[in-house]
Amino acid sequence: MRRRAIVTGLAAVAVLSIGTPSFGQTDPLPSWNDGPVKMAILDFVARTTTAGSADFVPVLERIATFDNDGTLWTEQPIYFQVAFAMDRVKALAPQHPEWKGLEPFKSLLEDDKAALAAMGEKGFLAIIAATHAGLTTADFTKAVLEWTATARHPRFNRLYTDLVYQPMLELLQFLRANQFKTFIVSGGGIEFMRPWTERIYGIPPEQVVGSSGVTKYVLQPDGVPVLMKEAKVQFIDDGPGKAEGINQFIGRRPVFAFGNSDGDQQMLEWTAAGPGARFMGLVHHTDAVREYAYDRNSSIGKLDKAWDEAVRRKWAIVDMKNDWKVIYPFELK
Amino acid sequence: MRRRAIVTGLAAVAVLSIGTPSFGQTDPLPSWNDGPVKMAILDFVARTTTAGSADFVPVLERIATFDNDGTLWTEQPIYFQVAFAMDRVKALAPQHPEWKGLEPFKSLLEDDKAALAAMGEKGFLAIIAATHAGLTTADFTKAVLEWTATARHPRFNRLYTDLVYQPMLELLQFLRANQFKTFIVSGGGIEFMRPWTERIYGIPPEQVVGSSGVTKYVLQPDGVPVLMKEAKVQFIDDGPGKAEGINQFIGRRPVFAFGNSDGDQQMLEWTAAGPGARFMGLVHHTDAVREYAYDRNSSIGKLDKAWDEAVRRKWAIVDMKNDWKVIYPFELK
Repeated sequence: MRRRAIVTGLAAVAVLSIGTPSFGQTDPLPSWNDGPVKMAILDFVARTTTAGSADFVPVLERIATFDNDGTLWTEQPIYFQVAFAMDRVKALAPQHPEWKGLEPFKSLLEDDKAALAAMGEKGFLAIIAATHAGLTTADFTKAVLEWTATARHPRFNRLYTDLVYQPMLELLQFLRANQFKTFIVSGGGIEFMRPWTERIYGIPPEQVVGSSGVTKYVLQPDGVPVLMKEAKVQFIDDGPGKAEGINQFIGRRPVFAFGNSDGDQQMLEWTAAGPGARFMGLVHHTDAVREYAYDRNSSIGKLDKAWDEAVRRKWAIVDMKNDWKVIYPFELK
Repeated sequence: MRRRAIVTGLAAVAVLSIGTPSFGQTDPLPSWNDGPVKMAILDFVARTTTAGSADFVPVLERIATFDNDGTLWTEQPIYFQVAFAMDRVKALAPQHPEWKGLEPFKSLLEDDKAALAAMGEKGFLAIIAATHAGLTTADFTKAVLEWTATARHPRFNRLYTDLVYQPMLELLQFLRANQFKTFIVSGGGIEFMRPWTERIYGIPPEQVVGSSGVTKYVLQPDGVPVLMKEAKVQFIDDGPGKAEGINQFIGRRPVFAFGNSDGDQQMLEWTAAGPGARFMGLVHHTDAVREYAYDRNSSIGKLDKAWDEAVRRKWAIVDMKNDWKVIYPFELK
C-alpha cells in the first residue's frame, strides 16, 4: 500500500497543477475503470481545487463524507457489527447461563438462523444492547480490536477489515492528497469503528460520525474515572439523522458525499443543497461473483428511493461490476 | 496578528529543535509573565514533542481541549450566549406581543434585572429555548453572526469577540505550531460558537464540542432540505458531560486540557487519567481591574471543587493578575 499511496499522491499533484484529469502512469484511481464515475470524480476534484476556477472550493470547505457499511466495506450477509455482537454473545454466554432460555440469545446460541431471522431487527437490537453496554469504553475498544484481529468472514475466510474496497481506499487518498478532509458518516456504532478506521482508512477517530449509546462518567473507588456504556441510545446516525449528525458533529456541509443505500439519501440531499460545485455518489452492488448483488429488495443496504433520486438528479452511480477493476486490496497481492 | 503568528511559529520550531524552553526574541508566549505556569507549558510541549524523549507523544495523539467561557473569553457579568439570547428576545418582541405579559420575557423587556435574577437559571433556560428554536440552523448562524458583529459588552464597550484572552490565543497557536490539534469543549451552545471560532481562535467548526439541541431534517415544498432547531436538548456538555462529550465527539483522550470552573473538573480528571505525560490547567480570575475577580462564591464560572483538586494534584493554575501581561488583544494596539 505504501508505494501505491505515494504514486497516488504524485498523481494528485499532477491533476492539481494542470487542472484537468491526468491518466496513464500517474492515474490516482488505478483500480477504477475509465468510466463515467471515474471521469466525474477526476473532473470534480480538478474543478474544485484549481485556483481561479469558477468552481474553486477553499481548503477549509473541502469536507468529504462517506457512509461505511456497503460504501467503504462489505455489509453482507449481515452488517459486520451484528456479526461482532453475535460472536460476543457466544463469548459471554458462560457468564450468562440465563441466555440458554431467553430469546434472542437462545436461538443465536443454538445457531438457529431461521428463528433469528424471524425475530428481525428487534432481535438484533436486543443482541446489540446486551453486548454493547455494561462495560467501560476502554473494555469495549479492547473487545473490538480483539474481534477485528481474529474473526473471519464466513464467505471469504478473511479478516473483516480485509473486506474494504480498494477503489474507495484510492478515492479517500486522492481526496486527502487534494486537501479534502475525509469523514465517515455511518449508521454503525461510532465506538465500533473508531478503534480501526485510522489504520484501515486513514480516517482518525475525531472524523468518524456514527450512531452512539449514552455513556456515564463514573469515578471508581481508587479515584480513576471511567466511562460506562449504558443500554440507552444517544443518537441514531441514519437517514435524516445523517444530515443532523453532519450538522452536530462536523458543523459544515460536505461538498462531496458517497453512500450506497436509502439510509444515505438525506446525506446526499443535504450535500446537494449547498451552493457551488457538489459531488454526490452511490455504490450500486452489482457483482455477485466478486462481492454481492443487491438493491431494491435487500433487507440489508436497501437501495430504492435513493437510486431513483440519483438517476433523476444525475448523481454518480458506481456499477461495481463494471466500474471497479478489483474489489478488495488482497486481490492486488 | 499575522506577524505575531509567524514569530510564534518560528519560536515553536526553535523549542522543538533544541528540546528546552526558548526565550527572548523568539518567546512563543510573549503575553505571559515568566512564572510557573508559562514554564510548565513550555516544558510540557518540549518534553512531549522531542523525538527520543521519554514523554514523547505521537502527533496523532496530541489532542488539546479548551473550555470556552472564562477560559478563552470573558464570561462576566453574564455568559455571552445569555446576552445574545436576551438581545434576541428584544429583537423578536414585535412578533411576540404575548411576551409582554409572560415571564421571563416580561421582566426582560421591562429591563427588570432584579426580577430576572430572581428567576435564576429557569428563566434563562426559557429565554434560551425561545430564542434558539423554531428556526433553521442557517438562520440561527446568521443571527449569531449579526450579533457578534454589532453587540457590545456593557463594561468594555467592545464587540464580544474582542474579549478573548491574548495569552490563550498565543497558547493555542503555540500548541498548533507543535502539531497539537486544538478543540473547544464548552458547556455553551455548539451552534453559538461555530460561526466565529475559526476566525477568532483558528479552531474550525468540526473541532468545537458543546451543548446542543435536537435538529430536525425537513424537506421544504420546493424539495430543498433544511435543519429546524427544536426546543429539545440533545446533549449537555458540562461537568461529567465534558468527559462524555470528548469521548463522543473526539473519540480520543486529550493530553492537554484547560478550564476555569467546576464545570471543567471532570474534563481535567479524564485528561489526567490517561497514561504518559499530561497537562491540566485552570484559569483563576484574579484581576478585578483589567477583567473580573471571582471564584468559590460566583454564580457564573464557580471555581471551588476543581480548585481544591488542582491544588492537591499540582495542576497548573493561572493567576490572571500576575501571570498575564495583557488580557485582551486590543491592549496591544
